[in-house]
Amino acid sequence: MTKKPLILISNDDGYQAKGLAHLIEAARPFGRIVVVAPDRGESGMSHAITIKNPLRLTLHQKSEELTIYSINGTPVDAVKLAMNQILKERPALVLSGVNHGSNASISVIYSGTLGAAREGCLNGIPSVGFSLLNHDKDADFSVVSHFLPQMIKEVLTNGLNDQTYLNINFPDVGLSEIKGIKVCRQTKGVWKEEYEKRTDPHGGTYYWLTGAFNNFEPQAEDTDEWALERNYIAVVPNQIDGTAHQDIEQIKNWNWIGKR
Amino acid sequence: MTKKPLILISNDDGYQAKGLAHLIEAARPFGRIVVVAPDRGESGMSHAITIKNPLRLTLHQKSEELTIYSINGTPVDAVKLAMNQILKERPALVLSGVNHGSNASISVIYSGTLGAAREGCLNGIPSVGFSLLNHDKDADFSVVSHFLPQMIKEVLTNGLNDQTYLNINFPDVGLSEIKGIKVCRQTKGVWKEEYEKRTDPHGGTYYWLTGAFNNFEPQAEDTDEWALERNYIAVVPNQIDGTAHQDIEQIKNWNWIGKR
Repeated sequence: MTKKPLILISNDDGYQAKGLAHLIEAARPFGRIVVVAPDRGESGMSHAITIKNPLRLTLHQKSEELTIYSINGTPVDAVKLAMNQILKERPALVLSGVNHGSNASISVIYSGTLGAAREGCLNGIPSVGFSLLNHDKDADFSVVSHFLPQMIKEVLTNGLNDQTYLNINFPDVGLSEIKGIKVCRQTKGVWKEEYEKRTDPHGGTYYWLTGAFNNFEPQAEDTDEWALERNYIAVVPNQIDGTAHQDIEQIKNWNWIGKR
Repeated sequence: MTKKPLILISNDDGYQAKGLAHLIEAARPFGRIVVVAPDRGESGMSHAITIKNPLRLTLHQKSEELTIYSINGTPVDAVKLAMNQILKERPALVLSGVNHGSNASISVIYSGTLGAAREGCLNGIPSVGFSLLNHDKDADFSVVSHFLPQMIKEVLTNGLNDQTYLNINFPDVGLSEIKGIKVCRQTKGVWKEEYEKRTDPHGGTYYWLTGAFNNFEPQAEDTDEWALERNYIAVVPNQIDGTAHQDIEQIKNWNWIGKR
């Protein structure tokens, strides 16, 4: 009998997060699971790496079927250190999440959950980030758990093209309200940040990040935000290449060195 | 006489970095400069934002021509807080750098310098990140400074397409060795991380990130790494949209819900 595939799991809400527990349970039937996840919440850490501080691992659980480490670093650190120091073989999958909160549209850029998935992809491993549109630490992940096994099975079966990873967001509704699954593109938008300005007891000024999402194309039916607002699960294939290829010829014509 | 344009400048090496000083000097003839930069090195912070800690600004210098703040946050925090709380008008440009070290190829993903430029772009402002291929804090930026004014002038003159920002890397060579300026695409590659494992005085294990860049396509003449290795300045237009559009139809055909 061949060994079951090795599956690396991380997240950005920390190794004790409820969403992570649901992802582990969904993935267990498909492989041997190694979890390396931050030891605290690392939301908004994007693709950050720890350069100036040493990283440490804490082992919480170890067996052939399920091993869990936490790390004092970012989600990307977790994937990097797992690949380099913990895993004895290349994983068949890197899964990240399930995030407590949306990573649709441009949130994919800020998200630590998707950072971990992107790092898996950079290393040539089929990688997926999962998110539920509910920030609550006790959010109900039962609908996510309903769909996860088949999704994991399909990624294992089909693989993903080189340099592509998936960003899957679930609307926060009951199973009977789910309309289906839509493969989409990333919605154009921006977070309009509204910082809350406060004064500390010593008279110093400080700011808390708040902010609201501003959708630039709410009517675009091929976008992830459109799908999620209508109770579809949104799947966006993402790529590593960030080049604006369509702009290259235009920018070549600039007067770059001032001699014309 | 109309007011000179407002130019917002940030970086990821901190407000006292030499590369930042060179960028400020190059930009001053073109506008009124406001600098908001991290109060310490924030390399590798990517597009990270500070959610759980309050942000504070420290004013170091203030005049109509040049105002300098530091912030206890990431480069993206700096741009967000500047736009939301400091600037009384929209800037004409967001410039970031000049970074001490390369941000070519996939380093654009990890870079705090490019995080700041990307955040400017998300807000609809022509934005550029500049980097020199020399990590030294006393690196020689004279070649960069030779080219910066014309580059800044061209961005002000031409603008950039919506959702596009520029990643400009300079080889670390003398002016006479510069071959020219090439508009390129992002090189495919990966950082092969080699963590250095150490033991602390109390017997605990810790890891330092090291690592070397692995170029997947060293012969591709249209890439930034190819250009830089041959002493060209490399300009890569980058875009916000990360969708792998070419994969959408294929992934739509997956057996997403297991009923077929």
